[in-house]
Amino acid sequence: MGRDPRLTTHLALTARALGAERMFLEPPDPALAERVARISAAWGGSFAVEGVDDWRSVVRQFPGTVVHLTMYGEPLERVLPRLEGSGPVLLVVGGAKVPPNLYRAADVNAAVGSQPHSEVAAVAVVLDRLLGAPDGKRFRGARRRIVPQARGKKVVGAGSRR
Amino acid sequence: MGRDPRLTTHLALTARALGAERMFLEPPDPALAERVARISAAWGGSFAVEGVDDWRSVVRQFPGTVVHLTMYGEPLERVLPRLEGSGPVLLVVGGAKVPPNLYRAADVNAAVGSQPHSEVAAVAVVLDRLLGAPDGKRFRGARRRIVPQARGKKVVGAGSRR
Repeated sequence: MGRDPRLTTHLALTARALGAERMFLEPPDPALAERVARISAAWGGSFAVEGVDDWRSVVRQFPGTVVHLTMYGEPLERVLPRLEGSGPVLLVVGGAKVPPNLYRAADVNAAVGSQPHSEVAAVAVVLDRLLGAPDGKRFRGARRRIVPQARGKKVVGAGSRR
Repeated sequence: MGRDPRLTTHLALTARALGAERMFLEPPDPALAERVARISAAWGGSFAVEGVDDWRSVVRQFPGTVVHLTMYGEPLERVLPRLEGSGPVLLVVGGAKVPPNLYRAADVNAAVGSQPHSEVAAVAVVLDRLLGAPDGKRFRGARRRIVPQARGKKVVGAGSRR
């Protein structure tokens, strides 16, 4: 929906790192999808960005709860109990211009604070609340892996620079 | 530290919405600070972006715990107990090139997942974990306020468009 590619990359990597399985992107951006695919290949897991021509069909066909993240929605705390254990969840964030019918097409309109901020932050907080602390098991098949350090950097595997 | 202004705006608004008191920005960006100031004036609270010429002096003089957010650091879950109730916290995020001595200057190097993603997401998750759900009381003096809705938008106050 007319998005800044750098912000969209942050959104995709955030979704991946915090446990999403995939991201649908309208309009498709093959170069972005390819960049994210290279990162997934190196760092593990099966997250992918899938370009779609019409967000409406994704929302309509989704076999679970569709949650539109908007600062105008119901507070996240009120919404979370409805999502926990309810099966697959599709988080939807709009671009600069959110089509008004998205508010009706979603099962839930949820706000991470009723203040203007960032779709990257909203997705991060919701995934963290729903899925908890990121866990290395999500990222099978990694060629490269960080070994957490109190100071400095330690990366093991192919292509790690130190 | 050589940042994309749009991402920096998302970072500032996320910090504000999730409860930070202020943001120090190097190098200073007066136009960005002014944009954020206008948003704070409309939506309440006293958050501000303060330009600084040298991040080192901010870190050195900070009367509390300095937490550098980096995917190479210790897992957030391990770090959080040290931060809760420990007084003021300064979160530090770097630009494209993080100066190596930041790892030593910080009291703690903390990772929100050991995967590449976004400083906007990292700040959001840490503030959410430390401060909990955003609360309207943080935003005193707002000229404009959202009334959460299950569907659609409701804004009350001056300058609200509907």
